[in-house]
Amino acid sequence: MYSLTVRDHVMIAHTLPDPFFGPAQGMHGATLVIEATWRREQLGPHAVVMDIGEASRQLAEVLDPLRYANLDESPVFAGRLSTTEAVAGHVAQSLAERAGEDIAGVGVVVREHPDAWVAHDVDLRA
Amino acid sequence: MYSLTVRDHVMIAHTLPDPFFGPAQGMHGATLVIEATWRREQLGPHAVVMDIGEASRQLAEVLDPLRYANLDESPVFAGRLSTTEAVAGHVAQSLAERAGEDIAGVGVVVREHPDAWVAHDVDLRA
Amino acid sequence: MYSLTVRDHVMIAHTLPDPFFGPAQGMHGATLVIEATWRREQLGPHAVVMDIGEASRQLAEVLDPLRYANLDESPVFAGRLSTTEAVAGHVAQSLAERAGEDIAGVGVVVREHPDAWVAHDVDLRA
Amino acid sequence: MYSLTVRDHVMIAHTLPDPFFGPAQGMHGATLVIEATWRREQLGPHAVVMDIGEASRQLAEVLDPLRYANLDESPVFAGRLSTTEAVAGHVAQSLAERAGEDIAGVGVVVREHPDAWVAHDVDLRA
Amino acid sequence: MYSLTVRDHVMIAHTLPDPFFGPAQGMHGATLVIEATWRREQLGPHAVVMDIGEASRQLAEVLDPLRYANLDESPVFAGRLSTTEAVAGHVAQSLAERAGEDIAGVGVVVREHPDAWVAHDVDLRA
Amino acid sequence: MYSLTVRDHVMIAHTLPDPFFGPAQGMHGATLVIEATWRREQLGPHAVVMDIGEASRQLAEVLDPLRYANLDESPVFAGRLSTTEAVAGHVAQSLAERAGEDIAGVGVVVREHPDAWVAHDVDLRA
Repeated sequence: MYSLTVRDHVMIAHTLPDPFFGPAQGMHGATLVIEATWRREQLGPHAVVMDIGEASRQLAEVLDPLRYANLDESPVFAGRLSTTEAVAGHVAQSLAERAGEDIAGVGVVVREHPDAWVAHDVDLRA
Repeated sequence: MYSLTVRDHVMIAHTLPDPFFGPAQGMHGATLVIEATWRREQLGPHAVVMDIGEASRQLAEVLDPLRYANLDESPVFAGRLSTTEAVAGHVAQSLAERAGEDIAGVGVVVREHPDAWVAHDVDLRA
Repeated sequence: MYSLTVRDHVMIAHTLPDPFFGPAQGMHGATLVIEATWRREQLGPHAVVMDIGEASRQLAEVLDPLRYANLDESPVFAGRLSTTEAVAGHVAQSLAERAGEDIAGVGVVVREHPDAWVAHDVDLRA
Repeated sequence: MYSLTVRDHVMIAHTLPDPFFGPAQGMHGATLVIEATWRREQLGPHAVVMDIGEASRQLAEVLDPLRYANLDESPVFAGRLSTTEAVAGHVAQSLAERAGEDIAGVGVVVREHPDAWVAHDVDLRA
Repeated sequence: MYSLTVRDHVMIAHTLPDPFFGPAQGMHGATLVIEATWRREQLGPHAVVMDIGEASRQLAEVLDPLRYANLDESPVFAGRLSTTEAVAGHVAQSLAERAGEDIAGVGVVVREHPDAWVAHDVDLRA
Repeated sequence: MYSLTVRDHVMIAHTLPDPFFGPAQGMHGATLVIEATWRREQLGPHAVVMDIGEASRQLAEVLDPLRYANLDESPVFAGRLSTTEAVAGHVAQSLAERAGEDIAGVGVVVREHPDAWVAHDVDLRA
């Protein structure tokens, strides 16, 4: 299996309005560093997983609505919690929808601070 | 699949008393940076893999006996070599024992210097 | 010259309400990773710049009011812009006020994303 | 599953002579940071995945012909494109050929700049 | 003193045709990760060292001729060695020429691999 | 001012036998990642601060006695505490003694874990 990963980031604000989240219930924010990975069984005719410029564009297209955003006002998270896991799920699903048919899977890591990160992986085989 | 990773570290001394280990046979030490990952098929009611504070506490509970420790005197490694792999195995197994029933697996990466690290993964499905 | 640096982080929201800041005028946020440095000409009796636990406590004391905070509502930045530079200046000045008389200077680096960071340095000699 | 990873790097030049590669068609170069991983179901008698010195030597043996090399003149990539994916594939296959019978798989990550990396994984079970 | 740093990178090829450089005499390459710093005694009216977008643009303007370049054919290094130090000097001098009158100094770090980097600093006070 | 930095590491054990050090009084250890910097006003005939191979060799020569060492038994720290600051001071002084006459200063950073590091700087001008 081969894979290509590109990295980008967004700087967001949000609340997590549930007592479960303790001090993170109020308005706060994060720099979310996103690593997006595309997997493929065999390389294509140019000996790459996919065009790296296209990979970066697809990731940017998904992230643009989140840049400098207050996630409490984002339609993406309307009616649900914008946890880091939810962001990872949204980005991975959005990239999976855009993936070419040779792509076996898409994975997303979202780093929220030096000591914590989450991931979501979508298997596109089957 | 979703996952959450938290990071902590311990500063340990130990010997690896077997000629196999060459210059590492004598008393030396390491800063072991531990990345612990919990995996889960679907997110729970708060849209997280698990409470990140609880994740950090479980990791700290497992690591506390190793902080500023001489592993040669640690009951954890009595009668066996305290290689980085053995530390990774111990931490991953200890976290697996504490894992909730929704957790599909636990993985641990232990970084011993900028150019070397080990990992151990425990699959909790089945 | 000797120095000791410790690292911590805060996850903040804020607005930068001036057209100068373009897309950062609205509510957004950041993980600010703060590296605080204390400098000293000669080491003290325990061969350290200062007690590392005390260094971490002083930094935490300064950062605690900023953890999970909306800087727009923080008294620290009342009436002024809470730019990353302003945060660095506030943290460095606050640490300088707490510094022992052997400390020659205090420096603070604030990293806001992988490709940008600011610093402020306070010289305490003179 | 256990794994051991060691890291090394090479500084190479090459062309990617196909319009697909845009500005990378001409002679340019890269520092390729290579992370090589060996996986094993159970640890061996010394409680390690494999001797870390042997791991580093095997990786160096594979990388030596690429150090300070112009990949356009390297027999490894004669008649084919030396993309980062192709380098990852070559290194992983070369390590897989050298792997002991207890090794369940070999993985290679090749980082080409802070925001992009590729990987290739070889499963040796079956 | 305040400072702002932004980071970018270029992927270059070059030769270092002097026996002094041993295996680096032939055609090889590097990913050069460049950190450019602007220093200023006091913050300006927007509480920043300078506009971060303008900082990134100035750095990109200086780096654009070096992106995917063979430095042996670059007019910047005509008749001289394109060592990492020479690149750092060129970038720092070029940024210094563009610096506003409030800027006290410009510093550039160029990282060529995980274990080696160079820097050049230009003091603009005089 | 130009500078060159190279990085290496050692894995040491030691005690810090003074109540001041709390849990670090007993036998424990650290991976010490050392960044050594040489500064020079102007570049020499080969457009470098110094030969990078020579820089690495000088650093290795100073670090070799500390590799896999119990610092309690090292003549370098006989009769004194082997704090990270003391290690930084020893390495910087040792490199300063070896420095060529064109070198304006030597600096050493010693990283002991992801959230703490120390530095020592020796000015060789005058």
